[in-house]
Amino acid sequence: MQTKARLRKKLAKAGVDGILITDLINVRYLTGFTGSSGYAVITDRDALFITDFRYKEQARIEVRGYKIIIENSERSGEIKKYCDRYGIRTLGFEDHNINYSFYKKLVKRKIRLKQLTKMIEQLRITKSRQEMVHISTSVKRAESAFRKLLPIIRAGTTEKKLALKLESLLKSAGCKMLPFEVIVASGPTSALPHAQPTDRKLRGGDLVVIDWGGECEGYSSDMTRTVLLKGRSLTKQKEIYYNVLEAQKRAIHKVKPGVKTADIDRAARSYIDKAGYDESFGHGTGHGVGLAVHEKPVVSWRSTEIVKENMVFTVEPGIYLPGFGGVRIEDMVVVKKGGADVITSLPKKLKIIER
Amino acid sequence: MQTKARLRKKLAKAGVDGILITDLINVRYLTGFTGSSGYAVITDRDALFITDFRYKEQARIEVRGYKIIIENSERSGEIKKYCDRYGIRTLGFEDHNINYSFYKKLVKRKIRLKQLTKMIEQLRITKSRQEMVHISTSVKRAESAFRKLLPIIRAGTTEKKLALKLESLLKSAGCKMLPFEVIVASGPTSALPHAQPTDRKLRGGDLVVIDWGGECEGYSSDMTRTVLLKGRSLTKQKEIYYNVLEAQKRAIHKVKPGVKTADIDRAARSYIDKAGYDESFGHGTGHGVGLAVHEKPVVSWRSTEIVKENMVFTVEPGIYLPGFGGVRIEDMVVVKKGGADVITSLPKKLKIIER
Repeated sequence: MQTKARLRKKLAKAGVDGILITDLINVRYLTGFTGSSGYAVITDRDALFITDFRYKEQARIEVRGYKIIIENSERSGEIKKYCDRYGIRTLGFEDHNINYSFYKKLVKRKIRLKQLTKMIEQLRITKSRQEMVHISTSVKRAESAFRKLLPIIRAGTTEKKLALKLESLLKSAGCKMLPFEVIVASGPTSALPHAQPTDRKLRGGDLVVIDWGGECEGYSSDMTRTVLLKGRSLTKQKEIYYNVLEAQKRAIHKVKPGVKTADIDRAARSYIDKAGYDESFGHGTGHGVGLAVHEKPVVSWRSTEIVKENMVFTVEPGIYLPGFGGVRIEDMVVVKKGGADVITSLPKKLKIIER
Repeated sequence: MQTKARLRKKLAKAGVDGILITDLINVRYLTGFTGSSGYAVITDRDALFITDFRYKEQARIEVRGYKIIIENSERSGEIKKYCDRYGIRTLGFEDHNINYSFYKKLVKRKIRLKQLTKMIEQLRITKSRQEMVHISTSVKRAESAFRKLLPIIRAGTTEKKLALKLESLLKSAGCKMLPFEVIVASGPTSALPHAQPTDRKLRGGDLVVIDWGGECEGYSSDMTRTVLLKGRSLTKQKEIYYNVLEAQKRAIHKVKPGVKTADIDRAARSYIDKAGYDESFGHGTGHGVGLAVHEKPVVSWRSTEIVKENMVFTVEPGIYLPGFGGVRIEDMVVVKKGGADVITSLPKKLKIIER
């Protein structure tokens, strides 16, 4: 079913005559508009896209299937006008995106409002064939950049230099923007799941966690590999690496339409716990990826979501030992009828850098 | 006066016992915290900074002068607890930052709320000596990157290549993040004030608008230079360049404590109008720069703001001729008692690239 039709079904069910879509990612999802100022109003019959004069030309090129309107007065007044003109008695709005200040303005215009929670995000949770094409390209760009980075990872270079290089390689690979700042964390720093690259020089025996993503037509990719620098005693590093890898395989193996995302998390977590690292995996196992690099579903012990066909999410368990180092391995998977298709194709056998 | 003291004066005036600060830039401004999850509550006597366990260590290092609390339950409940514990009967909140969904949660907790509009932004509008140090470094980093870019601007190279190179030079110069994606717009594309870099190759006779910024400790810089590629007939290009430059000089000359920012805009605009380009300068003359790359004050014909000592803003008039090309020249100024100090030091004489 077409996206607009799926949305209209939801609108009817929610008891609203129309929806005001202000979250720019949701606007892009529905209309194709990539600019930074614009919103949409969708009713049972009509679909409007509204922007300002700066984006007139861009809207004409990008937006299909919407009446394009250039706003020329204060936004809340414009919206009131559309409600009157298109017969909207109750207007749904995105409660995570409308700030209180704007909400009050709409109320003052005497628009009857209804709070809607993550309606478009719910549509975005499963991916269309076209979206999968962009996501695949986004993954490929990220992988080709990483392959070019590998030869320059060596003892003596810094985390920052590697991160900068990878960002530059990602842009060269065609990514217009990066979904997040590349993480390169080495040695003890790799024990912090959210480390920022520092001037620390890589040394023999270091685990090096590299977490990065690509982009294509607004769609993100997100992946992590951990490599090891040759050194004297690597036993511990190898042990935690292969524990994480096995945990990740078990989680991926669990993926199937109908299971709870919490069960996927448990598959990874219980393996890590049993290996004796039950205090060492402090974050969730994964998250959806699409137009946003973090979106639904949440793959964690707290989640109540159910896996559906054509969802795309990461599987990224880790073990982090303060003062020593950490390992994280992150792939993206798409859910098919029979189970997970792993989209990330980079090898997962532990890479030991001999330089 | 210390920032917290200035804020407390405003709180008393607004009739609230405390303020909930959720805008992350405002949180950083007040507490020093640079992470992506945390908020502050400030009362007449107390100052709390609240974050989650992931940022415990970081908060301990970065946050000074606040009681640091690690939240362990749902946020609205935590806030209710602080209201009770610290005697907050009426809690002010940032109306541009609290979304409707969270507002409703606070209401359900029976917290008496009061909408505050841009209170911290108003504090941020003038810069302290320490802030000026960071802004100056941010400008210097941006300038040194640009100087290294200049030798590689030549006919045949693409906008994208130059933009990518400049981004990489900015990072090498020490910028942790970029305040916005670098704009390189050449030939006809330079007539779009918000152009994104394309694969277009630079040609003789092209005007090339380059708009970029640096960073230091979270503080942005923002500047634009327009260069010209040698070609057969450059008369028109030179004419609009020197009109923009003269308009910019007049605007800068107008800057002084006590004048309206609208008058600065008018100084540039009326000159451009009289030169016969009254349809060709479609944006405002400038904007404040600090922890955000676009912040108060607004320097445009619509603004009612008054210039104060230690404000920092851009002065960036332009002329854009559709199908032909455009010119923009952007400097940052800091307001001193006697007038504007121009912080940007890159030359403004038209640079004609002979390659």
